[in-house]
Amino acid sequence: MSKQERIQPRTLKGFRDYLPETMIPRERLAEVARRVYRSYGFAPIDTPALEYLEVLTGKGSDETDKQLFHFVDQGGRAVGMRFDLTVPLARFAAQYAQHLGLPFKRYHIASVWRGEKPQVGRYREFMQCDFDTVGTTAVAADIETVLVTHDLLTAIGAEFGLGAFTIRLNHRGVLNGLLESCGLAKKSAAVLRALDKLAKVGEEKVRAELAETAGANEQQADAVVRLAALEGDNDTLLAELATLVGDSETGAAGVERLREVLTGLAAAGVEPARVRLDPSIARGLDYYTGLVLETTLDDLPGIGSVASGGRYDNLAAMFTKQELPGIGASLGLDRLLAALEELKLLPETRTPAPVFIPYFEADRLADYLKLAASVRAAGYGAELYPEPKKLGKQLQHADRRGYRVALIAGADELDKGECQVKDLATGESTTVAIGAVADEVGRVLGAG
Amino acid sequence: MSKQERIQPRTLKGFRDYLPETMIPRERLAEVARRVYRSYGFAPIDTPALEYLEVLTGKGSDETDKQLFHFVDQGGRAVGMRFDLTVPLARFAAQYAQHLGLPFKRYHIASVWRGEKPQVGRYREFMQCDFDTVGTTAVAADIETVLVTHDLLTAIGAEFGLGAFTIRLNHRGVLNGLLESCGLAKKSAAVLRALDKLAKVGEEKVRAELAETAGANEQQADAVVRLAALEGDNDTLLAELATLVGDSETGAAGVERLREVLTGLAAAGVEPARVRLDPSIARGLDYYTGLVLETTLDDLPGIGSVASGGRYDNLAAMFTKQELPGIGASLGLDRLLAALEELKLLPETRTPAPVFIPYFEADRLADYLKLAASVRAAGYGAELYPEPKKLGKQLQHADRRGYRVALIAGADELDKGECQVKDLATGESTTVAIGAVADEVGRVLGAG
Repeated sequence: MSKQERIQPRTLKGFRDYLPETMIPRERLAEVARRVYRSYGFAPIDTPALEYLEVLTGKGSDETDKQLFHFVDQGGRAVGMRFDLTVPLARFAAQYAQHLGLPFKRYHIASVWRGEKPQVGRYREFMQCDFDTVGTTAVAADIETVLVTHDLLTAIGAEFGLGAFTIRLNHRGVLNGLLESCGLAKKSAAVLRALDKLAKVGEEKVRAELAETAGANEQQADAVVRLAALEGDNDTLLAELATLVGDSETGAAGVERLREVLTGLAAAGVEPARVRLDPSIARGLDYYTGLVLETTLDDLPGIGSVASGGRYDNLAAMFTKQELPGIGASLGLDRLLAALEELKLLPETRTPAPVFIPYFEADRLADYLKLAASVRAAGYGAELYPEPKKLGKQLQHADRRGYRVALIAGADELDKGECQVKDLATGESTTVAIGAVADEVGRVLGAG
Repeated sequence: MSKQERIQPRTLKGFRDYLPETMIPRERLAEVARRVYRSYGFAPIDTPALEYLEVLTGKGSDETDKQLFHFVDQGGRAVGMRFDLTVPLARFAAQYAQHLGLPFKRYHIASVWRGEKPQVGRYREFMQCDFDTVGTTAVAADIETVLVTHDLLTAIGAEFGLGAFTIRLNHRGVLNGLLESCGLAKKSAAVLRALDKLAKVGEEKVRAELAETAGANEQQADAVVRLAALEGDNDTLLAELATLVGDSETGAAGVERLREVLTGLAAAGVEPARVRLDPSIARGLDYYTGLVLETTLDDLPGIGSVASGGRYDNLAAMFTKQELPGIGASLGLDRLLAALEELKLLPETRTPAPVFIPYFEADRLADYLKLAASVRAAGYGAELYPEPKKLGKQLQHADRRGYRVALIAGADELDKGECQVKDLATGESTTVAIGAVADEVGRVLGAG
């Protein structure tokens, strides 16, 4: 092919390739998530990347969301690429509720697409990692959602050496109750918009906005700001919240639900330090109606929440008259990856196999194949270099990829039925009988 | 929302949802594939679902492939959804060859989209599960490709109780050599098109087509038909092929390569019955240039090849002048799923957790949470029903989902620190101390 005919190899703006060094930990994260979700009985599902546009956006929306990738397909249908996994879950639940039986617990790990302006760390294609319990308002489901989040972060911590985390809980009813009790119930959207800016712009500007957009008087603004600024241990906060919501039933029910959730978490053995009430957490309040949660890393709180979610009253109103209340949360896979990278917790390896076998005696391929097979049979991934090049060159290749052990066997060693097992981290080398190689590999890997 | 405003929950023609009963085995298959690929040092990568249209189709193609989902995005770019994982690999390899170092071994498990006419068992979205070794012509890579295929099918067999399989090997050079030796080299495309129909239309019609489209005389047609009909053990076939290709160098080199591959497989411990030379295998010959392979299930040969691939000379000519020879193959995940279903080897379960805990003493939630946590801590997935409904109703729910064990504890039992462990397959029930529940669960699951 001539140079003129060649195509420049590149990805679209806002899209990215995952190279092995990033994809290996990303797969490990997804595997940990699957393991934890399954351990609670959440079942995997998958839905198509493409859906009818009306399924994604609803009927009669004049202006299709600009963030949506959409087009007319070969059959003349208006279609779009899913932008989250919640709308597909709503369609799925409406379509199969009968078949699935309720309550239904599913997890879904899949890519979604949004045509938003690309920014550092934000892409137009990213992976979501959701779990939801649909068809129940029970407190046990609230508790379980927090437990799953807890077990997820604990398991990821163990896998990558990540430190402690804090799950922050709030309840939409508590916020609403407060607004009711101070006469701002009808202005909740404006209030929460203002409140969300507290950390960024400070109290004075929030007060000004509350006055302007929500028509709040000084006393009302006081109550709102005081709520968000509350601090203390969970018991103290529960008591203060109960006072603040006054005689609002919604508020009192929210406080009671938070109390039940904390009790359940303690019963299940969750360390108290891992869960904290935080009245400043709001999270997309148009959607959520009950418990809301966020999770921050104690070593890197600035990166934001790495696992978030909440309870909703009615998942699938767009598709069915059947009311489907539920609760769900999502692991922020890509944000966690970024956090692990920033904390230097990602191993610098480009190979999923720890063992490297150089092939440098051209006519002894059969011996190397046997050696590799025996190591794999013992459960250790082993890569055999495919070409009989000079040993030094092959070891350079190995070094670049980040293998942990090399099995070096020249003609002499092969004739004697022996092999060097070299620890690539320390450079130390032990010669053992071929039959004992797997054990020695295990010893080196175990020590590392 | 009013009935008129509601949207009908449905998927696009040719697309499908994966419900838990299908998604659970699909995830298990992908996990086996990942495990085997990794054990040989193949590293995971991912590429975007959307690419520049020219990356997918090349420059100046007047007629964009109708099978491609393509559109103009918000930024005015002509984009398309990937229709396979090979073109993205070619772009990826051209873009990062320097960074990755060669040879480069990757696996890629991801969805692809083709707007083809939907048929039974064929969808417009499906998962591919590819592995490739790029940047080497070495025979060791050929051998390894067959070994990976062998280990994949062996591991899937162990996981699902699937019987034996046969990997069928051929070499493009052998086919070309034969055509050279009988003067049909320039007509190879027409010959192979005719030959591919042998099983379907029979020898007479193939001879007629060979005469018509390839201008083959009777002697030439004889040679072609004879090649495809060859039978016998691998040694016999190697000898016959060597004779048939005559003095064609290409043919002789192909036969020699097949011999080396068989020797290597034997050295690595592959049972001879698992690998068979099959001169009738062609596989998209425009693309492949060396070894080609297909894999059939001995219990269900009619379903076709479940793992196929071959060697190519130049992966990424469209993107770079660097020659990138390689070899790869692909596991037919969805076809294997269909085969497992047809052979009744898929477990009928809709839950990934084997243990079900009914919650029927309303005020003992804390006890049930503790029980569930202890079973999970011992490594067994356990689902706690979230609402305190009648036991019978909950056991119906459990029955429908396919759990294997139920942990039944009423107030009396909880007060005594005991619990019934019920084997849901046999109906047998044993009462044990709460502290011994996990062991008893292990016993029941181990026995099942």
